[in-house]
Amino acid sequence: LRSADSPVVTTTVRGVTLHRLARASEPRGLLVAGEFDRQIPFVPKRYFIVSGVPATAVRGNHAHRTCHQFLVCIRGSVTVVADDGAMVEEITLDNPAEGLYLPPLIWADQRRYSSDAILLVFASDYYEEAEYIRDRDESRRLIER
Amino acid sequence: LRSADSPVVTTTVRGVTLHRLARASEPRGLLVAGEFDRQIPFVPKRYFIVSGVPATAVRGNHAHRTCHQFLVCIRGSVTVVADDGAMVEEITLDNPAEGLYLPPLIWADQRRYSSDAILLVFASDYYEEAEYIRDRDESRRLIER
Repeated sequence: LRSADSPVVTTTVRGVTLHRLARASEPRGLLVAGEFDRQIPFVPKRYFIVSGVPATAVRGNHAHRTCHQFLVCIRGSVTVVADDGAMVEEITLDNPAEGLYLPPLIWADQRRYSSDAILLVFASDYYEEAEYIRDRDESRRLIER
Repeated sequence: LRSADSPVVTTTVRGVTLHRLARASEPRGLLVAGEFDRQIPFVPKRYFIVSGVPATAVRGNHAHRTCHQFLVCIRGSVTVVADDGAMVEEITLDNPAEGLYLPPLIWADQRRYSSDAILLVFASDYYEEAEYIRDRDESRRLIER
């Protein structure tokens, strides 16, 4: 799945892509950068950061009706399971210079957080509970249209 | 400077404000979240993450002509020195649930990074070298207009 040559790598899950971000290692530190509407396919209205997740915990387990998300593991590692109803793929994020794009209607969870993991998520919409799909069958019906 | 009651705390430096972000501590981890155009006074075009900065290094040391920035220390601590030409203030960021807003024309540097510090910066513009002010006297002249 990983490629140093190609900035965007497709997965087997519909519309889910892995994006290389800019990275500069300098004597004064490491800098990684992402541009919205460029490497990242949308402009965010919201971000959130998740940390301190127990190794056995599974987060997510929902899809979004309209919200696009972009996940960057800033520290440590986390595995994202993405499911379009036909294909399921596990993508392990362990590099702050790459991000995973999840379009709407993709069912996803995040699991196997390392103890030091910090996950940064950008969302194209503000939080709205009605925008979440928490029924897996419903997400499958919607994506098949 | 810190206040749990007020979500936005002013500093002595013109337009520089410290913003409380939403924070939820759950059995499945800690979540902190920020909304653009709400708690954060702009929508970003870009973000960058700085880590691995030596304790003696000073980063920044410039102002921006048009770019707004919002700094969040996700891990560890870092001190921001902000200067409007009349007032100088040091603000130590050590909490992922707060962010520092720097408007254009404010001269700033970041120093005293802890060894584990991770600094997340949102910028309202894409990177453009011409938009940086690297001459302190010029930034002072511009801000006094």
